[in-house]
Amino acid sequence: MLLLIPGPVTTRPEVREALRYDFAPWDNDFRPLYAGIRERVLRIAHGIQGEHATLPLQGCGHFITEAAVRTFIPLGGKLLIPATGSYADRMIRLAREAGRVPVPLAISPVAPTDPDAVAAALAADPGIGHVGLVYSETGSGVVHDVAAIGAVARRLGRRLIVDAVSAFGALPLDLSAQPEIDVVGFTSNKCLEGVPGMAFAVARIDRVEACAGNAGSWSLDLSSIYAHALRSGWGSFRFTPPAQVLNAFNTALDLFDAEGGQPARLARYTANMRTFYDGVRNLGLTPCLPPQVQGPIIVNVSAPADPAWDLQRFVDALKARGVLISNFYSTELPSFRVGCIGAITPADMARAVAAMGEALGELGIAQRRAA
Amino acid sequence: MLLLIPGPVTTRPEVREALRYDFAPWDNDFRPLYAGIRERVLRIAHGIQGEHATLPLQGCGHFITEAAVRTFIPLGGKLLIPATGSYADRMIRLAREAGRVPVPLAISPVAPTDPDAVAAALAADPGIGHVGLVYSETGSGVVHDVAAIGAVARRLGRRLIVDAVSAFGALPLDLSAQPEIDVVGFTSNKCLEGVPGMAFAVARIDRVEACAGNAGSWSLDLSSIYAHALRSGWGSFRFTPPAQVLNAFNTALDLFDAEGGQPARLARYTANMRTFYDGVRNLGLTPCLPPQVQGPIIVNVSAPADPAWDLQRFVDALKARGVLISNFYSTELPSFRVGCIGAITPADMARAVAAMGEALGELGIAQRRAA
Repeated sequence: MLLLIPGPVTTRPEVREALRYDFAPWDNDFRPLYAGIRERVLRIAHGIQGEHATLPLQGCGHFITEAAVRTFIPLGGKLLIPATGSYADRMIRLAREAGRVPVPLAISPVAPTDPDAVAAALAADPGIGHVGLVYSETGSGVVHDVAAIGAVARRLGRRLIVDAVSAFGALPLDLSAQPEIDVVGFTSNKCLEGVPGMAFAVARIDRVEACAGNAGSWSLDLSSIYAHALRSGWGSFRFTPPAQVLNAFNTALDLFDAEGGQPARLARYTANMRTFYDGVRNLGLTPCLPPQVQGPIIVNVSAPADPAWDLQRFVDALKARGVLISNFYSTELPSFRVGCIGAITPADMARAVAAMGEALGELGIAQRRAA
Repeated sequence: MLLLIPGPVTTRPEVREALRYDFAPWDNDFRPLYAGIRERVLRIAHGIQGEHATLPLQGCGHFITEAAVRTFIPLGGKLLIPATGSYADRMIRLAREAGRVPVPLAISPVAPTDPDAVAAALAADPGIGHVGLVYSETGSGVVHDVAAIGAVARRLGRRLIVDAVSAFGALPLDLSAQPEIDVVGFTSNKCLEGVPGMAFAVARIDRVEACAGNAGSWSLDLSSIYAHALRSGWGSFRFTPPAQVLNAFNTALDLFDAEGGQPARLARYTANMRTFYDGVRNLGLTPCLPPQVQGPIIVNVSAPADPAWDLQRFVDALKARGVLISNFYSTELPSFRVGCIGAITPADMARAVAAMGEALGELGIAQRRAA
């Protein structure tokens, strides 16, 4: 079965094979493995040893985003969030529920965030200390420019929190060149192709230290995670981690390195996306985004206008052909969503396109253009 | 390698085998499996269909305890926490950092919480709405009486939050007889013998609904988890769950049922504990607890008085013999800690005792009584 959902992604058998062992995560034999995970993740982010730290958090991407917001923004603090789509909406909601003050910036859902609009919003409200940016918006498939938005924040003396959950490992990131970034959050799954269960932050050490006491949640406090590592050793976890998931993540990073790291991964995902994007257009379907703003991670395809269209039936017909996609809508207008990430290749995407052609035929979808 | 740490526990090969597949957790084929997990967990707690709900939370036991405290106790609300040991201390800290007001109740570290002391503390402060109780205190190995403490809370019109992380599945629990219990928290690991990565609460539905808006954290809000399930269907997760961990947990529950459920598990763990407890006494070592209060989950053994004693060397000598125990102290006086839970038997415990005898010999530990 080919998983073309944006997460959990398809993983390689070697990664799942690595799940088959019991571990004591603080064991002296496990510590070098875990140290290797932290170092490699730091390298992928182009973090600086001694200036940045890799901080682990059990759970999912949402938790690391909430931890980032709670840790770096004090209660009542304001953050500007470009409203890129459903994941920005999540950041807005989680910030509000945590007692922070999100300031949504309305932007086009089909274009990268305009740095000038961010600059204007920051200039208009000196009380906004942070920008919270979703690097790859899973809701739309648009990639936003962390370097450009970061440059604006830096110029105006503000700081940046990056939700890189569906971007990290595929899209470039250079923390060494962006001192305005407090933290980047992501997980073991998605573009790093481990199994889900563990989240990570790469954060500035000076900021993590300065922000101790902000979080208002021991579980979701990155400063506490850092302080614990200093006190108890970096091989120690505050709470029981998913040990098997960590071991599989280590194998996933081995495969990441062997493939050629972030540039190679971006190239494969881009090829996946192009094969799929062109393929569905050849089927008469309409991708939601024009090619020049279509990111390599997620492609949304508009639901066909044909009255015979039924998402669950389409999903079922695809599944019978070995291809699994999401069975719910995540855009305002009906569409179906396909992930181009995970242990999949352009040949897999071509197979998915062929399966979609057959499924459309089975459902009798003649009018394939957007509704 | 025999893992005798209290978590992650040793798991059965069938459980780890179930990790080897990729899943879309919201897929229609996965939903019945996940529904079965929720129903079986509810049955283990003797919850009432329609009155109690099983609520999933990604992550670890600490997260579910914080979620329980945040959800059922409003900001500024008071909870009485019998100071049973290190896990009660954790509940005290997490409650305080979440802006709740923990009221620690000093109790003996080597005896079950006295219900009369709880009653007196509750009577003395009508502002205390909840008792937070650690069912099996991993720090000490003492089991506390949820039924007796619950009866006190019920009589005085207060409510109970139970941290059952290291108890659930082994120690009895009857939510149908304890309407004062708002919530019981636990994980896929520990006595249920899945792999770590997923936490659960079984909670009263009326209370979950009444407490909406309390949490101050979207991630750690049990009311939000319940509302999401109602709105999007019980097969839907708010955020990506560790799909492989869930599948393994389902297999672990199959094995739990096949073994004979909670009574059988308690019997095996009790036999594990007795084999170990008697075995180390025969080696001349001193368990920290007298037999009448020694619970079946964790045994702490006092560090020998011999100056040659060195915990890490002891741990290493045991590891060379295929037995892994924790390499850090968790009691006030030095001790080593052994978990009697997980996919292990009295024969395994006898093997561990034999390995300890050899390890003590290797280290030249003559004075084996407590320091």
